[in-house]
Amino acid sequence: MWHDLEAIGLDPGTGGYKRLAWTREDSDLREWFAGQCAERGLDLTTDRMGNQWAWWGDPDAAVAAGDPGVVIGSHLDSVPNGGAFDGPLGVVGSLAAVDVLRARGFAPARPIGVVNFADEEGARFGVACAGSRVITGALGPDRARGLTDRDGVSMAEAMRRAGRDPDRIGRDDEALARVGTFVELHVEQGRALVDLGHAVGVGSDIWPHGRWRFDVPGQANHAGTTRLEDREDAMLGLAAAVIAARRAAQAHGCVATVGKVHVEPGGVNAIASCATGWLDARGRDAEAVLRVVSDVRTVVDEFDGLVTQESWTPTTDFDAALVRRMATRLGGLPVIGTGAGHDAGILANDGIRTAMLFVRNPTGVSHSPDEWAAADDCVAGITALADVVTDLAGAGA
Amino acid sequence: MWHDLEAIGLDPGTGGYKRLAWTREDSDLREWFAGQCAERGLDLTTDRMGNQWAWWGDPDAAVAAGDPGVVIGSHLDSVPNGGAFDGPLGVVGSLAAVDVLRARGFAPARPIGVVNFADEEGARFGVACAGSRVITGALGPDRARGLTDRDGVSMAEAMRRAGRDPDRIGRDDEALARVGTFVELHVEQGRALVDLGHAVGVGSDIWPHGRWRFDVPGQANHAGTTRLEDREDAMLGLAAAVIAARRAAQAHGCVATVGKVHVEPGGVNAIASCATGWLDARGRDAEAVLRVVSDVRTVVDEFDGLVTQESWTPTTDFDAALVRRMATRLGGLPVIGTGAGHDAGILANDGIRTAMLFVRNPTGVSHSPDEWAAADDCVAGITALADVVTDLAGAGA
Repeated sequence: MWHDLEAIGLDPGTGGYKRLAWTREDSDLREWFAGQCAERGLDLTTDRMGNQWAWWGDPDAAVAAGDPGVVIGSHLDSVPNGGAFDGPLGVVGSLAAVDVLRARGFAPARPIGVVNFADEEGARFGVACAGSRVITGALGPDRARGLTDRDGVSMAEAMRRAGRDPDRIGRDDEALARVGTFVELHVEQGRALVDLGHAVGVGSDIWPHGRWRFDVPGQANHAGTTRLEDREDAMLGLAAAVIAARRAAQAHGCVATVGKVHVEPGGVNAIASCATGWLDARGRDAEAVLRVVSDVRTVVDEFDGLVTQESWTPTTDFDAALVRRMATRLGGLPVIGTGAGHDAGILANDGIRTAMLFVRNPTGVSHSPDEWAAADDCVAGITALADVVTDLAGAGA
Repeated sequence: MWHDLEAIGLDPGTGGYKRLAWTREDSDLREWFAGQCAERGLDLTTDRMGNQWAWWGDPDAAVAAGDPGVVIGSHLDSVPNGGAFDGPLGVVGSLAAVDVLRARGFAPARPIGVVNFADEEGARFGVACAGSRVITGALGPDRARGLTDRDGVSMAEAMRRAGRDPDRIGRDDEALARVGTFVELHVEQGRALVDLGHAVGVGSDIWPHGRWRFDVPGQANHAGTTRLEDREDAMLGLAAAVIAARRAAQAHGCVATVGKVHVEPGGVNAIASCATGWLDARGRDAEAVLRVVSDVRTVVDEFDGLVTQESWTPTTDFDAALVRRMATRLGGLPVIGTGAGHDAGILANDGIRTAMLFVRNPTGVSHSPDEWAAADDCVAGITALADVVTDLAGAGA
């Protein structure tokens, strides 16, 4: 399966992947997923948002019986120049777990689903986990349809070009009702498992996190003829905010990043009339994260700028009993939190019993071609996932 | 004349102008110039680069007689969202000066030329004064043809689309030989004349100036999951360099600006893998300017970055005798330097007897819709220009 996916969206120059939502690459990946499900005799359904669900067993009969299924899976899209594992490891690993279960002769007591969530990275339209957010209602259909990519193409238009009907998107109670439990397998995006010396860990929670935009005003003027004392240079406020964000993160035990900036008019010989930066801040403690933002706001205020919250997600706790059960039954796996958002977090916030499994990443690097997981560790993750499904979908559960 | 130009390239939202080289707007401006010259019976010629020269009298007969003409003029193109005066004041003012001279019944002893230089701002292809640089050989034709705009259109292609032949561009000795003296009228781009209380001043020199690109490396990684101590965040080096540039400019009595930046991959949740900034540094003293660059380089070095010089122009002195003569004969006008490059500087560096006249700008602002000159001050500038031409092209000179 890994080999099938290797070429899709690969930039041979960097070794990175570009698999943005509702593009040709995405379509190829979705078609591949459908083919794999067909080969395994899984019944593929697509929800209102286009998330793909493949079922072993009848999910609706289980819903009718009050005992809905166990879903595993992740996503296949990537950030620009992303790694091979973030997303695909969970989808490929879930299909492989089905193969493991069948090889073991496992007889499910309730249906097992494999999901491929659409547009998890939000790399094209700016909102992460758009697939799960729309079906849970966390992202309204009008707002989703109106999101635009850098070329001004709306999500509605992009979905239409990909053969989807954007008028149908919205909360999908039918799809959600089928999910009794969701367990997402994912490559770790840090070094916790490296430090702990474990190939696999159980995810306990997603840190509170948010995005803020800061706009610093300035006055466009000639770079050669305007005295320093006459300048109102927006770039200086941007630079000060970038440095303040790092300092504040250090001071408050969080992480903070300015990864995207925009400067107007953007000429080499023009003083910036406006500079915008986007702050991504996260941490174990929500109050500490908000203190980071407050510190940055103080600096932006000094430059008469404005800080606007674009998103804020409080701590997402996965199901505590499920986390304990998985860690115990898998032989005492470590339990770790994560600073990254996932579809699992969106489903957990919708009240679904949810947890995650992480596979060790020796580089600790993610969203980059350096992202990695050793083959043995991937197999350990798949085995753990098969064991979890055995536990949750078996007759004893 | 001002009214004719008012609408060309105007953004009604900002009040700014966008008149980039070899665009539709540029073509409209060039056509307008040709029409104005025809109305005045001036003979229009176009040099190899497409600069427009309109002659009152026979420039070649004057060359043959060893007494070439007196040229006035400037340019009509603008930066994006630029002001109305930078450029057009000099072209319109030169045509108006011709009208003044004729109204006075002036009889030229040598030919008078009015020039509209092409692509002075360099806003489209990145090299300022491309029109004068190419005909003097300061910019080689191959390099000029190969410059590209932000859409990847080469200057050669842009010229072709505008009906010019890019294969013909290069040094133009015939056009240059006709220029015995060049005097450029321009709006001041600072507040020196405001402080001095004069409507018009004589330009003495152009400060040494240059552009440097600095590239700071980083490692793309996930903004949420990468510990601060594991990060190599290129954005931090960029911010430090921006702040260092301002501090160094203050310390060394220069001006320094970072007005353009580029960050990769540029995602809100991705740590920057590469950040590039462009430093524009200028000052009265060349050594001080280079000390500014050296200070910035020290900071960029700390981030394992690289500083590359993209251009460097030493001090350009206008003809000292001509400057003195103009200041005296115009009734004791102040003599001021400038931090901005001009076609006058390119011609001066080619050995042509050159000077400039500046008109007071009450805002001191340039390359912005706030750029301004009062009507009375413009008339004072035009009168001064007519007086200079009377002095230089008259029988007594």
